[in-house]
Formats: sequence, structure tokens, C-alpha cells
Amino acid sequence: MGSLNARTIGIGMVGHAFMGTAHSLGWRNARSFFAPPLLPRLTALAGRDRTAATATAERFDWSEVVTDWRDLIARDDIGLIDICAPGDTHAEIAVAALAAGKHVLCEKPLANSVAEAEAMAAAAAAARENGVRSMVGFTYRRVPAVALARRLVREGRVGELRHVRARYLQDWLTDPAAPLTWRLRRERAGSGALGDIGAHAVDLAQYLTGEDVTGVAAVTGTFVRERPLPDGGTGTVTVDDTAAFLGRMTGGALATFEATRCATGRKNALRIELNGTLGSLAFDFEDMNVLQFHDATADASVRGFTRIQVTEPEHPYIAAWWPPGHGLGYEHAFAHQAADLLTAVATGDDPEPSFDDGLRVQRVLAAVEESAAAGSAWTGIPGAAARTGTPDTEGKP
Amino acid sequence: MGSLNARTIGIGMVGHAFMGTAHSLGWRNARSFFAPPLLPRLTALAGRDRTAATATAERFDWSEVVTDWRDLIARDDIGLIDICAPGDTHAEIAVAALAAGKHVLCEKPLANSVAEAEAMAAAAAAARENGVRSMVGFTYRRVPAVALARRLVREGRVGELRHVRARYLQDWLTDPAAPLTWRLRRERAGSGALGDIGAHAVDLAQYLTGEDVTGVAAVTGTFVRERPLPDGGTGTVTVDDTAAFLGRMTGGALATFEATRCATGRKNALRIELNGTLGSLAFDFEDMNVLQFHDATADASVRGFTRIQVTEPEHPYIAAWWPPGHGLGYEHAFAHQAADLLTAVATGDDPEPSFDDGLRVQRVLAAVEESAAAGSAWTGIPGAAARTGTPDTEGKP
Amino acid sequence: MGSLNARTIGIGMVGHAFMGTAHSLGWRNARSFFAPPLLPRLTALAGRDRTAATATAERFDWSEVVTDWRDLIARDDIGLIDICAPGDTHAEIAVAALAAGKHVLCEKPLANSVAEAEAMAAAAAAARENGVRSMVGFTYRRVPAVALARRLVREGRVGELRHVRARYLQDWLTDPAAPLTWRLRRERAGSGALGDIGAHAVDLAQYLTGEDVTGVAAVTGTFVRERPLPDGGTGTVTVDDTAAFLGRMTGGALATFEATRCATGRKNALRIELNGTLGSLAFDFEDMNVLQFHDATADASVRGFTRIQVTEPEHPYIAAWWPPGHGLGYEHAFAHQAADLLTAVATGDDPEPSFDDGLRVQRVLAAVEESAAAGSAWTGIPGAAARTGTPDTEGKP
Amino acid sequence: MGSLNARTIGIGMVGHAFMGTAHSLGWRNARSFFAPPLLPRLTALAGRDRTAATATAERFDWSEVVTDWRDLIARDDIGLIDICAPGDTHAEIAVAALAAGKHVLCEKPLANSVAEAEAMAAAAAAARENGVRSMVGFTYRRVPAVALARRLVREGRVGELRHVRARYLQDWLTDPAAPLTWRLRRERAGSGALGDIGAHAVDLAQYLTGEDVTGVAAVTGTFVRERPLPDGGTGTVTVDDTAAFLGRMTGGALATFEATRCATGRKNALRIELNGTLGSLAFDFEDMNVLQFHDATADASVRGFTRIQVTEPEHPYIAAWWPPGHGLGYEHAFAHQAADLLTAVATGDDPEPSFDDGLRVQRVLAAVEESAAAGSAWTGIPGAAARTGTPDTEGKP
Repeated sequence: MGSLNARTIGIGMVGHAFMGTAHSLGWRNARSFFAPPLLPRLTALAGRDRTAATATAERFDWSEVVTDWRDLIARDDIGLIDICAPGDTHAEIAVAALAAGKHVLCEKPLANSVAEAEAMAAAAAAARENGVRSMVGFTYRRVPAVALARRLVREGRVGELRHVRARYLQDWLTDPAAPLTWRLRRERAGSGALGDIGAHAVDLAQYLTGEDVTGVAAVTGTFVRERPLPDGGTGTVTVDDTAAFLGRMTGGALATFEATRCATGRKNALRIELNGTLGSLAFDFEDMNVLQFHDATADASVRGFTRIQVTEPEHPYIAAWWPPGHGLGYEHAFAHQAADLLTAVATGDDPEPSFDDGLRVQRVLAAVEESAAAGSAWTGIPGAAARTGTPDTEGKP
Repeated sequence: MGSLNARTIGIGMVGHAFMGTAHSLGWRNARSFFAPPLLPRLTALAGRDRTAATATAERFDWSEVVTDWRDLIARDDIGLIDICAPGDTHAEIAVAALAAGKHVLCEKPLANSVAEAEAMAAAAAAARENGVRSMVGFTYRRVPAVALARRLVREGRVGELRHVRARYLQDWLTDPAAPLTWRLRRERAGSGALGDIGAHAVDLAQYLTGEDVTGVAAVTGTFVRERPLPDGGTGTVTVDDTAAFLGRMTGGALATFEATRCATGRKNALRIELNGTLGSLAFDFEDMNVLQFHDATADASVRGFTRIQVTEPEHPYIAAWWPPGHGLGYEHAFAHQAADLLTAVATGDDPEPSFDDGLRVQRVLAAVEESAAAGSAWTGIPGAAARTGTPDTEGKP
Repeated sequence: MGSLNARTIGIGMVGHAFMGTAHSLGWRNARSFFAPPLLPRLTALAGRDRTAATATAERFDWSEVVTDWRDLIARDDIGLIDICAPGDTHAEIAVAALAAGKHVLCEKPLANSVAEAEAMAAAAAAARENGVRSMVGFTYRRVPAVALARRLVREGRVGELRHVRARYLQDWLTDPAAPLTWRLRRERAGSGALGDIGAHAVDLAQYLTGEDVTGVAAVTGTFVRERPLPDGGTGTVTVDDTAAFLGRMTGGALATFEATRCATGRKNALRIELNGTLGSLAFDFEDMNVLQFHDATADASVRGFTRIQVTEPEHPYIAAWWPPGHGLGYEHAFAHQAADLLTAVATGDDPEPSFDDGLRVQRVLAAVEESAAAGSAWTGIPGAAARTGTPDTEGKP
Repeated sequence: MGSLNARTIGIGMVGHAFMGTAHSLGWRNARSFFAPPLLPRLTALAGRDRTAATATAERFDWSEVVTDWRDLIARDDIGLIDICAPGDTHAEIAVAALAAGKHVLCEKPLANSVAEAEAMAAAAAAARENGVRSMVGFTYRRVPAVALARRLVREGRVGELRHVRARYLQDWLTDPAAPLTWRLRRERAGSGALGDIGAHAVDLAQYLTGEDVTGVAAVTGTFVRERPLPDGGTGTVTVDDTAAFLGRMTGGALATFEATRCATGRKNALRIELNGTLGSLAFDFEDMNVLQFHDATADASVRGFTRIQVTEPEHPYIAAWWPPGHGLGYEHAFAHQAADLLTAVATGDDPEPSFDDGLRVQRVLAAVEESAAAGSAWTGIPGAAARTGTPDTEGKP
């Protein structure tokens, strides 16, 4: 059964593991809960490991499995390429897909290097001229509590920004026996905690504030260098497992960042706090249905952080789901992402976050590595909006 | 695409609104995430309002829509009837389905009266002889944090039970302008907050402790008697909007219960706390991925309530979903329910909660209304396990 | 050193243990932080155990120790009798002191029976004609967060009251090896958890709402009947260790109460929540510097419970203490109590809570015991304000 | 009244404002609650403003007021000088007092410069040879939850340290109308948020871990440069109002620090978290009676952060105060500090934190300012213990 007259678009997805599962569910639920103007067909899934790819395809009713992503791009019945493979593949696939006139959704980080990201952003800009859309998968932007935070910032409820405090804490590398996967090898993953989870912290900081990180001073580190290989023996970890950096936002606010996989007991603590002259906002993904808001303009005797349960119909995305107090989970943001992208493709609007947004994050990550390699020296972000803010900084040029 | 050799079962669902949506998603996700030995086919959905039913059917790929639930029971390609319609329909549908040899999943409360519930439990017992399974939809049992709590009780980590503190707080009737829906009419809903949400609190108390409520002293009330009708004019609310009662568990523990739709600011606060001689457990659905556990046998200087994020592979149901710290939402328990029921049907085990469990809850609800009508006089629960516990109670026969 | 011209009043305190310590500190800090118009002199402390009394006296600079409280009343240099002895002594001491024209501060519960409490209230009324003041020590009223809650209720920010949820949870009797002290003997303590801690929950409910409890349905119990005596052997516990009851407030709101010493892991959890048509308030003494306030009139997208840190100069009592965010502790409410009483004595105003307030609590406690002894039958509170509210209650006369 | 045979020591306190009040209360309560082997006599208080000093003296029974601190040192009946005056006075007073053989308690930060702090540490070392004791007032070490955290680290329950996350957030400078006090002038205060509150964060990090900060990369800033003077007109803020820095601990753990007076809604949020291979600890002064402990060695299914209410007799300092669940407040740590110092003087042990501890903090603060002035360049801490740890750091020498 289906709406006979609804327009549809064929999706070709590259990858079938963690992100492949989340995206599959996202496409499916976008259709069931958001009635986008363009309905997704799960046309084909590409995976080098046919057996594993087939398993995912069966779980989510992908019509076909291929082993070469190029086959997806070659097909006329596929209009959108969804890239869920490791970071070292993003640039090649995305550039080829865009050149072929396919809309592209690409997982984050956009690429493993600034050069790749620049090429991708250029390809996206060129394709845009032909009505082709592209989006990078900073999915956390579409957690309702985060989207609400952005709305409150836009409405001016934080005022002039003073501080950003962003961190992404996990603990799965605390154990020295955790195996050496592709995520711990530079040639596949680009970087470690920095690119995998730090990228989310940077994107959220830039998204929520509407400002750029203009410079950083950084330290990175790897606490455990040798780890067991999945097939026996040990191998060398070639990426960071922790990164911490100071930053300055366009408007002068002071930002602190931390990304680590060694924060024992913190499982998926993507946290961000904004402090401004009129209010503050705080979010923690481990309590993902909640946004904390401090309204500094409220009556002094009842001022405090309000624990907003972001499950009301007035909140972003919620009307499509359940009654108040019935929380959402991790996967729901993928449905929001899919629905928003399908709508953008249908309406011809530019979806966000764009490849340019992904490039901006990539430049911050590169500056972090550069600063860390240079004794934490302050390192400006090329192309970041010029600093215009008021703070008088001691010791910053 | 699908597993060619997998056994399947046709589902016929009655209802298409809130619960119909949740169950549709449950069946779909059970297949995608739990690979049950028996795969569900979404064969047909029954709804008196064909337009509305068709809309739900299209969202979730139900193959067909019918307007009379009897048509579902008559079909050979349907093996399981899923009842998501209001409580006044449960008994008739369930008894007919069971008599026809269909497995049944029935939303809670099991029925609108003890007599109906008894008839249903009898029908379930008779059908069981023929290998027919039945289950009542106390879905909250399958929230991973709740299932973990049950496991800890079974392991003896709470010790001898002293207190149960169960409440279900909502606030959507605080506003006198909230409309008069079928949920506020006794002839459709049976009771108000008591049967709709109080039933969950009672079931959780009995499930988590493994004991029965043996008697109650109760008060019920309706704060707003006249409400606007959806089509204009006003009508009379004929059910409670709040109920509070004291209870005694089989083992002697003292229990307190409250169900209300007037707890301003509490959206879906299904909360339960158990205190025992060795430990305590606390759960709040508004923070559904968390279980609080106090281990009274721990070293005195580090004792306290531990906030367990129930998102680890060691926790019930979690291995099928996401990595640690990536929380689940309201709907996931419906997938767990569907998967467990499909497994039970396939293996021939008795699923839980049974119609007998539903009947036990119904008897408590009836005793609550009886006590409230009798000046809160202590009212025993017929058939509840005889009290065997140690506490010396003052003023209780 | 001291203010030469300040008026002073001699205090005679009866008792020297837990409450004696807290009151001593209260008098001392009232002087240091609140500059009351009448300064307390710690003239004499009465204790039957001279050694123990002397120890307390030395710690807090009481000028003298006596072993008979009558000696305090006989002295001209003592103007205020502070009763910190067990409940069975309250009536005799207070009535004698009031008759002798001494102002009286009496620990709670006011007495061990309604009859005693009535006699005390009558004595207070008579003494009042002669300018003598009396106050009962429901100290929690003067925790700043509680006083702020009262202010918000008075300002109408809760609206029409629907629910009161009051409980006082402790766990020191969970252990069957906890010894049999005077608090577990009816002849000394009057009752157990009910009178010792339940009294606070009842007083807070009546104080915060400005309404009376008009009736109750109750259960009480004693989980451990035999306990070791401090000096060896075992003895029988003759009071409850747990009590739970339902109640109705004057305006019709439904109230639930619980007091227990068997709530494993809850150390001093005096909790109260009010739900009204315009807002809700929640307090937990284990987080005593915080008041939770839900403003139902706020913009829907930012509504939630606000965690007010009650440490601002705009909050009750706080300006006398520390800067924002520097929390107070348990003992501070005793300084507030002492300061307010000294001010009332100096100005001739009636201090609160009065002996009448204490009597109102006593009547609720008596009704609880009566209801518990009568199978939880609804038991009206004699003299409670007639019920005037709107709720239509099912099953309540 | 007093213990006839108790040994006493005369205290001479310099300062009478916020810290003068807290210390006065500390001396008084140390005597009442801890029965130290040496009892304090509040002999004399020195303040340039005799009226204000006299007011404080009267509140806390100081026997005498002088206007020149040298008069305190000259007296034979004073054995201990307690320095509560602004930072620019510390060195002169402390060195003179130590030279005169007086024990010294000096508020933090120890001094306004490393040079002064070195002189003070040298003076303390010389005086120590003569049995003279000195202590710096990092009072937060003696909050029971912090002392418990230290005990757990010592017991090895955190394991090998990976991360320190320390911040001290306030918001009283968010408002541009907040006046220009001495705390905002470099010549009096030395630095701003960095020295006043950041010093506490640094000390806690070093104290709890038992390690040194060995280097930093820093940014400081001042968001509001011109502020109203108390007497009219405006003046220039010459200190930072915010500072953030990265650091490395002796053992290789990565540390992040932040101190700010512009974190809207955060009132006194001194927070520290330690992550190690075996466990994590987290503390927030705004919830000061609580320590969060994650035991990574616990059974996987019940692992999480345990909210330890640090109010049990097994916890540091608590046995002297109230029953479980009856929290302490800000001032209690000053009583602990006084009691511990009096005990150390009596027993001849070296009290902690020492002037050397204060100097170590001072060196970190100086390195922060140096790094901030040098474009965040990594700046080693002279004399910090050589780095010995395992982490392989990218971009750190």
C-alpha cells in the first residue's frame, strides 16, 4: 500500500554498519512520521561485504544489494546517494555522485582532510547550480532539544554570547584491551576522538551560536598506543584518543572544547553550554529529551535553570511523534534529517548543514592538530569570519 | 527483500490511533532489530473510520484496511489479533479471536470491568489448551530499565521488601478547556486516570515485586466535571481524573499509589520506587533510560543511589539497538513486546504479562473504586495471594 | 564585647542532646547574623544528666547548668524557656512556663496527645493576653527554599490547588540491629515515624498551602517489633516505624502523605510537592538549597521545572549569610527560628508556627492513628476548616 | 563557662569582611564541634576601618579591635595570626608574623605574585624550624565530599588518571552595571577570576590527584572593561574576568581548567571531575553535600555514577555534626580548617595545605598569565614534578 500520487526518490546507500542501520531507519521513519513531499524508495545498498550488506538490506527492505558504490551512481532510478562508509571514502564518492547529478547526504566528518573537504564543498557548489542538494550528517543538530536551543538563540534569549563549553565524552577506550578497529587508524578515520566526536562538538558550537570558531590552542594525546588486533596480535593506534582545545568565537566569546574516549563512566556525553548576557542554555545527550534554560531576565527570586522536557508539540519535530513526556531516542534525529533533506530536495531549498558547514568544521579540526603540533600555539582558522567582538583579550593578538 | 525461509504470521490490528501507531512501529522494528523466529506480516488493519484507518495503514505498510474487526478473525492469513481499540471493545474482540484460534495481544487495561476481564482470562485459559497465546499490553514492563529492575529484584538485591511507591502523574487535564474525549466517559473508558494510567502503576508494582496487592484504601476524584465537547457545547466527565490509594503487598510491604492527570508540569511521570532490607530501586519514565539502584550492602562510605544508564549490552533488550549512551525512546518497548510475543508464539511458551496478570490489575482497580465509594474502607482484593509477611500492622485486620 | 545598649533576654533551655545542640547554635547564630532587637543570653541549661548537660553547656557557653527545669522557670533572669526534651515532658514544662510568664519555644511534635496539645494551646492563649509569646519548633518552615515556596503560594503562583504530595523518608530502622531508644517507645515519644517526622510533613502541607487537612485514611505499621536494648537484651518497639495516609485539604485538593524510617537509601528526604492550576512547587530536604518551580503560565516552549538555587539576597533569610551559590546547612533554620522569635517577642507580634498550629498537626496525627485502627476508614479532623472546594469526589462523604 | 584545664591559643585576625566573618565562625564552631586539643581565644581583630571592624568583632565576640595588624604581632597573648585581608597584604603580614614566631593561617591566593609567594614559603620553612606552623586557606579541600574524594583517590579507586576537568563558574560580572571593587583592580587583587576562583580549581586538581600541573596553554579575557565606581563615575577593570587553560598533570593526565565570573546562572559552581582507569569522581560545590563516584570495577549491569550523600558518620568531619541526610553549608569547611590547624599546632604536625602548596598554585597562575600573553604557547611550570606518565602526546614536547 502507498500513496499513489506521491512523488518518490530512489535512495542508494553506501555502508551497512552502525550508520547504515541508523540511516535506514531514518529513511523509513521519515516516511511514516513526516509525510515528506518526496517519499524515499530504498532502492539499493552498496557494501563490499555482500553478506553483511545483505543482512542489513533484509532488515530494512532495501530492494537490492551491490558491492560497488559506483553502481549506485550509474543508475537512473537512484536520485540520492547516502554515504555511510568510513571517512576516507567520502570525497571520492560524494564528488562522483554530485557530478552525476545525484543529491548527496554524507556522514560526518565531511572528509579526512581539509583538501578533501574543500574539493567536496566545491563540487557541492557546482552541483547546486544544477539543482543538486547536499547535506552533511551532523545529526545531533536535529535532536529536538538542540533544535530548540538554536531557536532560543535566534530569538535573542541568550543575548550577547560570553562562553561556549562543548565536550563529547565517551569511555570505550579506557580499557586497554579494547581492540584496534579502523576508527583507530589514521589512514581510514583521519583522526580519532577529534574527528569522530570532537567534530560534533565543534559543529554544535558553530550551529547553536551562529558564529565561527576563529582560532584555537590545542592539546591532543593517545593514552594507549598498542592495542589487540581483532584477528590476533597487536597493532599501533595512530590517532588521538583525546583532544582538548580553547577557542574564540567570531563575536569574541571564549570557548572550551574536549573530546575523549577515556572519560570513564561517560558513555555518550555530548554536552554543550552557552552563557550569554541574557541567558544560558545547557544540553547533555545522555539526557537527550531535556534542554536546560536559564533566563537571566526572569524575576530574581524564581530564576534558575529550567529543565525543559522537549516533548511538547510546540517543540521542533515533536508534533510528528508521541504525546508530552514520551521521550525520543537516538535514532529519531535520523528521521528528522531524512525528512528535512527530502523536503529540501522537493522544494529546492538548500539543506543544512551544508558541505560548507562540514568544511568549516574540518578547518577547525585541522587547526587543532596544527596547534597541538606547535606547542599549543594559537592557530587561526583560515576563512573564519573576522573577529568583531567586544572582549578585550589579554595575550591574544 | 526478505528471508525466504523465515516463518511468518499475519497480524490483524484493530485500531489506528495512538496505540495503533505505536503497535505498527513495534511490529516493524521487532522484525528489523530482533530477528524473531516468526516474522510478522502486517496483513490488515481494522478501523470504523476508513479514511483514518487508511492513513495509518499507508504510513506503516499494512496490506489492507477493513472496517469490521470480525473480518480479521475470519481470515486464514491472519494468525494474531492485536487489539488497540478502546477498552469497551476488548472483551468481545479478544474472546472471539481466541475462540477462533487466533493469538491475541490486547492493550491495557484488559477490560472495563472485572467481569469482562474474568471472561477474557477464562477464554485465554481455554485457548491455551489449543496452543493459542495471549498477552496484555503493559508495555512499560519492557522498558529496559524496568526489565533490569525486575532482574535485580529476582536476584535478591532488594532483599525483603518494605515499601512500594508507585505513581503515574500527568497534567493534561489541569486545563479546564481540555476537551471531553472518549477517555473521559465511563461507558467507553471504564475509568479515568485510574484505569488508563493507574493500571500501569499497579501492574509495575506487582511485576517488579513478584507480589500481589492484597488490599487497598482509596480516594478518587474529579476536579473538573464539565468540559467542552469536540463538536461544541459542553459535556459531563464521568470518570475520575485522579486516584490515590494505599495498599499492602503479599509479603507485607506497604505500598502507596497515585494516578492523576492534574499534576501540573508532570508529563508522563510513571515513577516507582522499591525499598527493601538490602537495597532500593527507583525509576521515572520521564528519564526512561535510567534506573536508580541503592545497594545497602556496599561499603558505607560510597553508598548512594547509582544512576545506571541502561544502555549497555549487558542490559535487557539493548544489544539489539545502539552503542552505550545512545538512549531509546517511548516506542522501543513496543518492539520488545512484539518480539517477545512472536518468540513465545514460535516456541510455545506462555508470554507475559498474561490475561491473568491483566485480571489481577483489574481486581485492584475495582477494589480501589469500591473503597473510594465506601469512605476509603480497607478493601481486600479477591483472590490475591494470602498475606504472609512479617509486618505487624496497626489497624489492619 | 557586646552592644552596650542592646536589650537582652535570658534563655533557659531544657535538653542538651541533638535538639539542644541545634538550638544552642540557633541562639548563637541568630545574634551573630540577624542582629535581632532583643539579644539572647544563654543563661542556663537544664538536664537530668548533669555531666552530659555540662558538656553541651561548655560547647556553647551556657552560663549555668541545672538538673531540674523548674529552676529555670523560677529565675527572674530567664525570660524564655526553650523546650528540647522528649515529647512526654512538653505539656508540663510549657504550661508551667507560660503560667510563670515566660515566653516558650517548644520542639515538635507539640505533645504526645491531642489532650496535652489542647491544654498547651489553651495555656498559650491565656498567656498571650499577658504579652507572653509561644512558638512550636517546626523548623523546616524556615529553610529558605520552603519560605520561598510559601511566598510563591501566597502570591498566587500555584493557582487553585489540586495535589499535595508530602513524605518524610528515612532509613535508620531498616537494620533490625538498630537499637531500641526512647524514640521507639510510645510512653516517651507518643508515636514513631508518624509523630517524629510525619508531623513535619503535615505541618509543611498545612503551612505551604495555607489550608487544613480535613480528613484522612491511613495505614501504619511496624516492620521490626523486637530490637536490642542499648544495655543488652531485647525490647519491644511500641510505636510505628511507618505511616501512610491519604488526605483532603480544605480547598478540596487531594493529599498523600508518607512517613517511614525504612526507606533504604533515603536519609532525610522530607519532600513536598504542590500542584495547582497555575504552577507546581517541589522541595526535597536532601537538596535543601533548591526549590523547584514550574510556572504553567510561561511560554509553552520553555516551560519546565526551574531549579531555583535559593541562595540569592532576594530570597528569605539569605541576605544575612553568604554570597549566591554558597549553600546553607541543616542548622541555619534554627538561627532563623531564634531570630524570628526574638523579633516577635521584642515587637509583640505573634510568632509562627503557634501552639495552635502544633495542635492542628496533633489532631491530624490522632486521626491517622484512629483511621489506621479502623481499617483505614475516612476520619475527619475535628475543628478543621469546613471543606469548601470544588472537586467532586467519588466515595467521599 | 569553659574547660578549666584546656590549653588555649590567642587568635589575631586581620580583616573583617566576607572572609573575616567566615573565619570568625570557623574558630567558634571548631571549638563547639571538634573539641580541638588547643582551644582558640578570639583575642583581637585588626581592621583599618574601626567601625566596620568593631561590628564584626561584636558579632563574634572578639575581645578587642585594633587598626594596625602590627599590634597583633606585637602581643604576647596572640599565638596565631589569621590573614583575611586582600592579597596585596599577605606577604608582608605573613612574613612578619612568622618571623615573630606566630603561627599563620593565610587566605588564598597565597600572594599576588610568585616572588611574594616564594618569600612567604621561605619564611614558613624557616619558621617551621622553630615549631611555627603555617597554612593557606584553600578551604574547599575540607568540604567533606572533597575530602572523601581525596580518600578514594588515595585508596586507588580511580586508578591511573586520564583526565581532570576543573572549573569554577560564577556570574556576578555578567551585569555590566556591577561595580568596580578592589577585586577588579590588579594592584589589590593580583588577578581576577584567575586568582580568586581559578586558584581553587588548580589547588583542588593538585590536591585530589596528588600530582602537579606541569604546564599550561591559556587564554584570559575581560569582557567588560569599564565599570561604575562605588562612589560614582567609572573606572577601568585591570584584571581578567575569565580564564581558560589546558594543562598536563605529572602522571600525564590531560587537564582542562576554566574560571569565569560571566557564566550566567552559575553561582558558585566549583566543579571537578577525575577520570581514571578504574573509576571517576565528580563534585560540584552547588551540590556540596554530594560526591559522584563511578566504580568501573563494579558489575557491568549496575555500573553508573553513584550519588553519595556525604553526610554519614563514616565520611570525613561528619561525625561531629548532624545525623545522616542533614546537610552542611558553606561555612562548615572553615570550622574544619580551624580545627585541623589547631590540632596541628598542638601536636606539632605540619598542617595542609602548606605555603608550599600555595606557592605551587601561584606558579600555575603565573604560567597561565605568561601563556596567555604568548599566544597560548605551552608554558611549563618551574619546579613542577617532572612528567613521568605514559601518554604519548602529539604536539607536546
